[in-house]
Amino acid sequence: MIVVLKPEATDLQTEQVIAKITEAGLTPHVMKGVERVVIAVIGDERVLGPDILSAMSGVQDVMPILSPYKLVSREFQKENTVIDIQGVRIGERRVVVMAGPCSVETKERLFSIAEDVKMAGALILRGGAFKPRTSPYSFQGLGEEGLEFLSEARTKTGLLVITEIMDPRDMSLMMKHADIIQIGARNMQNFRLLSEVGSYNKPVMLKRGLSATVKELLLSAEYIMAAGNRQVMLCERGIRTFETATRNTLDLSAVTVIKQLSHLPIIVDPSHAVGKTDLVAPMAKAAVAAGADGIMLEVHSNPELAYCDGEQALLPKDFRLLMAQLKKIAEAVDREM
Amino acid sequence: MIVVLKPEATDLQTEQVIAKITEAGLTPHVMKGVERVVIAVIGDERVLGPDILSAMSGVQDVMPILSPYKLVSREFQKENTVIDIQGVRIGERRVVVMAGPCSVETKERLFSIAEDVKMAGALILRGGAFKPRTSPYSFQGLGEEGLEFLSEARTKTGLLVITEIMDPRDMSLMMKHADIIQIGARNMQNFRLLSEVGSYNKPVMLKRGLSATVKELLLSAEYIMAAGNRQVMLCERGIRTFETATRNTLDLSAVTVIKQLSHLPIIVDPSHAVGKTDLVAPMAKAAVAAGADGIMLEVHSNPELAYCDGEQALLPKDFRLLMAQLKKIAEAVDREM
Amino acid sequence: MIVVLKPEATDLQTEQVIAKITEAGLTPHVMKGVERVVIAVIGDERVLGPDILSAMSGVQDVMPILSPYKLVSREFQKENTVIDIQGVRIGERRVVVMAGPCSVETKERLFSIAEDVKMAGALILRGGAFKPRTSPYSFQGLGEEGLEFLSEARTKTGLLVITEIMDPRDMSLMMKHADIIQIGARNMQNFRLLSEVGSYNKPVMLKRGLSATVKELLLSAEYIMAAGNRQVMLCERGIRTFETATRNTLDLSAVTVIKQLSHLPIIVDPSHAVGKTDLVAPMAKAAVAAGADGIMLEVHSNPELAYCDGEQALLPKDFRLLMAQLKKIAEAVDREM
Amino acid sequence: MIVVLKPEATDLQTEQVIAKITEAGLTPHVMKGVERVVIAVIGDERVLGPDILSAMSGVQDVMPILSPYKLVSREFQKENTVIDIQGVRIGERRVVVMAGPCSVETKERLFSIAEDVKMAGALILRGGAFKPRTSPYSFQGLGEEGLEFLSEARTKTGLLVITEIMDPRDMSLMMKHADIIQIGARNMQNFRLLSEVGSYNKPVMLKRGLSATVKELLLSAEYIMAAGNRQVMLCERGIRTFETATRNTLDLSAVTVIKQLSHLPIIVDPSHAVGKTDLVAPMAKAAVAAGADGIMLEVHSNPELAYCDGEQALLPKDFRLLMAQLKKIAEAVDREM
Repeated sequence: MIVVLKPEATDLQTEQVIAKITEAGLTPHVMKGVERVVIAVIGDERVLGPDILSAMSGVQDVMPILSPYKLVSREFQKENTVIDIQGVRIGERRVVVMAGPCSVETKERLFSIAEDVKMAGALILRGGAFKPRTSPYSFQGLGEEGLEFLSEARTKTGLLVITEIMDPRDMSLMMKHADIIQIGARNMQNFRLLSEVGSYNKPVMLKRGLSATVKELLLSAEYIMAAGNRQVMLCERGIRTFETATRNTLDLSAVTVIKQLSHLPIIVDPSHAVGKTDLVAPMAKAAVAAGADGIMLEVHSNPELAYCDGEQALLPKDFRLLMAQLKKIAEAVDREM
Repeated sequence: MIVVLKPEATDLQTEQVIAKITEAGLTPHVMKGVERVVIAVIGDERVLGPDILSAMSGVQDVMPILSPYKLVSREFQKENTVIDIQGVRIGERRVVVMAGPCSVETKERLFSIAEDVKMAGALILRGGAFKPRTSPYSFQGLGEEGLEFLSEARTKTGLLVITEIMDPRDMSLMMKHADIIQIGARNMQNFRLLSEVGSYNKPVMLKRGLSATVKELLLSAEYIMAAGNRQVMLCERGIRTFETATRNTLDLSAVTVIKQLSHLPIIVDPSHAVGKTDLVAPMAKAAVAAGADGIMLEVHSNPELAYCDGEQALLPKDFRLLMAQLKKIAEAVDREM
Repeated sequence: MIVVLKPEATDLQTEQVIAKITEAGLTPHVMKGVERVVIAVIGDERVLGPDILSAMSGVQDVMPILSPYKLVSREFQKENTVIDIQGVRIGERRVVVMAGPCSVETKERLFSIAEDVKMAGALILRGGAFKPRTSPYSFQGLGEEGLEFLSEARTKTGLLVITEIMDPRDMSLMMKHADIIQIGARNMQNFRLLSEVGSYNKPVMLKRGLSATVKELLLSAEYIMAAGNRQVMLCERGIRTFETATRNTLDLSAVTVIKQLSHLPIIVDPSHAVGKTDLVAPMAKAAVAAGADGIMLEVHSNPELAYCDGEQALLPKDFRLLMAQLKKIAEAVDREM
Repeated sequence: MIVVLKPEATDLQTEQVIAKITEAGLTPHVMKGVERVVIAVIGDERVLGPDILSAMSGVQDVMPILSPYKLVSREFQKENTVIDIQGVRIGERRVVVMAGPCSVETKERLFSIAEDVKMAGALILRGGAFKPRTSPYSFQGLGEEGLEFLSEARTKTGLLVITEIMDPRDMSLMMKHADIIQIGARNMQNFRLLSEVGSYNKPVMLKRGLSATVKELLLSAEYIMAAGNRQVMLCERGIRTFETATRNTLDLSAVTVIKQLSHLPIIVDPSHAVGKTDLVAPMAKAAVAAGADGIMLEVHSNPELAYCDGEQALLPKDFRLLMAQLKKIAEAVDREM
C-alpha cells in the first residue's frame, strides 16, 4: 500500500499515519520527495483497509498494491480451475455451449428447444424459472413449475441444466433441479445471496453486473469461495456504456484480463450483451476467438412468442449454423467444441 | 407505441405485425412513409410489451410512448406524496436531514453521534447494521445488535431511525427497529427484496443503483408500490461514470427529472456520491438549491476510527456549520430547514 | 419523425405544431391516444431538424425515424465501398493489416520496423509524425521530417503509408507523403478538419471518438463525404467506460452495427483500445472473427525505447506469430489475409 | 512515481528498471514486499513519462504521485487567478453571468436578446458565429458576419462578447471581435487550436469535453498556458453517461475538485448539460450553490425560431426571474451577483 500525504501535511499528521501502520503490524517505509511525503507499507496490507488511512488528516491518497481478493486470484492458484459436472468439464480445452430459451414457458416448447440445442451440440440447457424483470408488470417466470420442467428436460435429453436464483430462500429448490446455479447481473452484489450460494456444494455461474468492474466481479466471486464453494465460473454479458446502438457493450477484453488475474473459467453471453439477433453470431465468434471457455446463447423456436427477450433469440436453424462456425474458430485458436 | 418496420419488410411481415397489435386489443395506425412503413399503436400499449413486437421479422425498432410505470408517475397522482412519520413530514416545504455514521460500531459512539446530529438539527438518524461491502473481508456490520443500538438511540434522542435491509429474511427485525427501511444502491434491482418490503406498511427509501437510469429507479419503486406500500421515497447517491476524481458522479439533474415524472419525495446523499469529506458540503448545498426534499449525510466523531467510509464522514463541528449554510440556501429557494 | 405532445398540451399548441410541419412541406398525421396526442410526420423529415419541434410549447418528445446521415448509409449505397490504393483493396474479402510504431522516431528504427512488418505480411505502414498528446510536455512528433521518413520507408518497402493529420494547414504535406490520412479519435468532431480532408481526393481513415456513438461516427464520415471525398474507412479503437482494467473498452459489436448501417469499410485498432501488450493479440483475433475489414497494430522493435505508447506495442516476433493466427481465424470466417 | 513489478519479475528486469530510473537523474527506492518488488522514484518524476517504465518487461503498473500539469496547478500558484476584462473581474466574489442565444441568427434578434440579458444583469453576451454541429446538414453559423453583429451588439450594450473558435485560421477574426474566446467541448483536445489560442494575449474559456476527466481538462488548459496565455477559465458543461433523461450529466462536483487542484476560475453551463429548459434553472441554482465563479445560459426571445438548441433556451422573462433567484443563492454562499 502506498500512502501519499498532502503537501501541507504536518509532522504530527505524518507520525499518526506511521503509528496506525505500525499498530496494524505492518512496516512503514517513509520517503520524503520533492513536494510531499510518501509512505510505502510493507506486509500484507489487507489487514488494514484503505478506508482507514484515507480518513486520516493529512492523507491525500492511498493506493493498494496487492489485489483485494485472494482465493479467486491467479497468485493463489496457478493452474486453471476445471469444473467437472458429470463429465462435462468447464475450463479446459473444450469450449462448452449453454443454450436454450430466456425463460421456461411451456413444457412442450422447452422440450422442443432442448432437443434442438442438443442436436446442434450444446451440452447445457439454459432457461429461467425465476426472472429478474425491470418492470413488475412483465412476466416473472413460472417459478417452481419451471424448475420441474427443466428437470424433466434434463431426464429426456441428458443435457445439464443452468438456471437463475434470485432469492436465498430458493436454495433447496435449486439444489434439487439445477446442475449450475446462475447468479444474474443484477444480483452480482447481492452479498447475502452470494454467501448463501457459497455455502452449498453446487457449481455457480456468476454474471458480471452492468456496471461492475472486473475487480468487483472477482470480489463477488471471492464471497462465494470464501463461504466454501470452489466451483465458480464467471460470465461476461456486456456492460452499460453511453452507446445505445446495442443494449449493452460486450467487453471481450475482460476475458483475457480475467484469465490473467484469476484461475476461474470465463463464459461469454453475447445474447444479453447485444440484445439483437443479427449481432449475436458475430459476437459469439469473437468471444471464442478471444479465448472464452464457454458461450451462453438464447435459442427459441418461435421468438415472437417468447415471453421475454425474443428479439435476441436465435432460431434453432441459425443456432446450428453458428455452432458449425464456432467449431472452426475454436480450432483456429487451438480449442475444440 | 410506434413500430418502425425495416425498409425491406414484406407485406406479409407487415400484416403479421398488424395482426399481433389487433390481437392485443389495440388499434394499429399504418403510415407508409418515403423509405419505410411506420405503425402507430393506439390504446394502452402496456398490455403488449415492446419485446414481443421487436422480435417479429421485418420490425426494426419499437418506441414506447407511454411510461412503463404507473403508480409512481405524476400522471397517476398529480400532488406530491408526503410521508408523515410521527410528525416528521417528508416531501413538503421543510428539507429534512438524515445524519449519522456509515455503520453502527459501538453503542457509545452511536449515542454520542446521535446527540451531535440532533443538536445540529437533524431529524433522522442513519446507521447501518447490515453493510453491503464489496469485499467479503471488510466489516459486515453488527447485525441485530446494531439494530438494537439504533432503537436505544431513538429512545434517548427522539430521532427517527433509517437503516438498510439486505435480505428479505430480515423484515421482522426491520419492522421492530426501523422507522424508514433503506434499500441500497446495490439492491435497487433485487426484485424479491423490493416485493417483500412492498408488502409491509413501513416507509422505504430506495437508493438509485450505480448505473441505473431514472426510468429504472422509478420501475423499482413501482415494484414496492405495486406490492401495496405507498410510502416510498427515492434517493440520488451518484452514478458510475468514467471520472475517477470522485467516487461517483452526483447527478443532481435527476432531482428535477424525478420531480417532473413522479410524485415521490427525493433525497440526495452527497457523502456516498463524492466519497471525500471536502466535497460533501458543496454538494449538499447544491442539492438543496436543486430542490431536494432531504439530504442524507455521514457524520462521525472520529472518522479515522470509522469501520467504513471514514474518508467521507463529516466531523460534528463541520456538520453544524453546514447545517447553518443549508438553512440559508433552503430559504433562498423558498424552503425551510 | 414522431412528435409526442405533453398530456396537458392545448389545442392551440397542437395546431402550432401541425402548422410548423405543414410549412416545411411535410404531412402531419395526428393520432389522439389515451393519454396524449401523437403526430407522425410523413415526408423527408431531414428538412425539419428535430430541435425546431422540440423547442415548441406543448411538445414533450421528438423521435426521428430516418437516420440523419445519407451518403454513408447502406440505404444510399447497397454494395460495400471498396477502396483501392495501388492495388491494395480495402473492404473486400482480404483482411488488411496496418502495422508500425506509434510515432516515427528515428529513420533507422522506422525502416527496421517497416521491414519487419512487411515480412510478416502487413500491407500498410502506420506511424505518427504529428502526435496528439494529452500533455503539452509529452513528445509531439517529428513533424515534417517524420513524414519524409515515412515516404522513404514506402519507397524502400513498397508498403502504403497511413499517418495522422491534426491541423487543416497540414493538408499539402499529407497529399505529398500519405497514402491514407488518419483522423484520430480526439479530432473526430473537429468539423473544420473533416471538411478540409473531404475536399481532397485521398483515402481517409476516421477513428471513432472516445465517447462517440456509432451514429456520431457516421455523421462525421458524412462531413467528409458531403465535401466530395468518397474514399472513407472507419476505425473502432475503444470507447471510454467506467472500467479501468483496460485503457478503453473495445466495442467489437460496433463492427457489425456499422456494417448494417453503412457501406464503408471498418478497421479495428486493438492496440489503442486495450493499451497493454498482453491483451492485443486476443482482441485482434476477436476483431477478425467479428468481421473487421482490417486491423491496425502497433509494432516496435524496442518498446521501452518508444517515445509513446510502448506498453501496447508488439515485438516483431510476436507480431509474426499473431499474423499466422489471424490468418487462420480469417479463413474460419471465410475471409483471407 | 511508484513502480510495481510483476510477482514473477526477474532480478535482471528489476535491475533494468532501476537503471532506467537512475539514467533519468531520479533516485530509485527499492522495497521488497511479501509478494513483489515495489520501487518508489524520488525526484521530479515528470522528466520520465509513465509510458516508458510501463513498457519495460517485468513491470506491472506505474502510479504517478505528482500531477502531470504544472502552470494550472494550485501548487504552482496558491491564490486564485482573477481575469479582468475592462473591469469585469472573473474569479472573485462576484458570480458573473454570460447569456445570449446559442447562435447568432439575425442582427435584430441578437440586439433584442442582448438588451434583454443586459437589463436582467448579465455582463457578457454569448453567441456562436461558428457552430460545431454533429451533422453537416445543420446550420453551421453565420461566420464572419455573425462576429460583426456581435461587435455591434457590444458597442450598443456595453456587454463583453464571448464566442467560439473552431479553426486556428480564424484567430485574427477572433482578436478583432471577441473579448473571450471559447473553445468548445468537441475541441478540448484539438491541441493545435489550444496552442494557437495560447500564443495570443486574449482571455480564453475552455469547455470540458464530453468524456474528458478533470485531469485531462487541466492538461488541455496547460497547453494554453504553456504557450504563454495565462488568462484561462474553465467550463463544466456536462459529461456523457449512460443516462438519457438529460442530454448530458452535469458534474457539479467538478467545480470543487477543480478549485482544489487549480487556481483558474470555473464557469458552469447548465443549458448544454441538461438540454431542456425546465431543468436549466434548478441546475443554475445548484451551480452557484456549489461555488461556480460564473454561469453561462442560453436565452432566446423565440426558442422555436432558434437555429439551434431552442429546446434549452430560456425566455427573457424566465431569465430575469432566474437572475433574481441566483442572486439570493449567491448571497447565501457569501458571494454576490
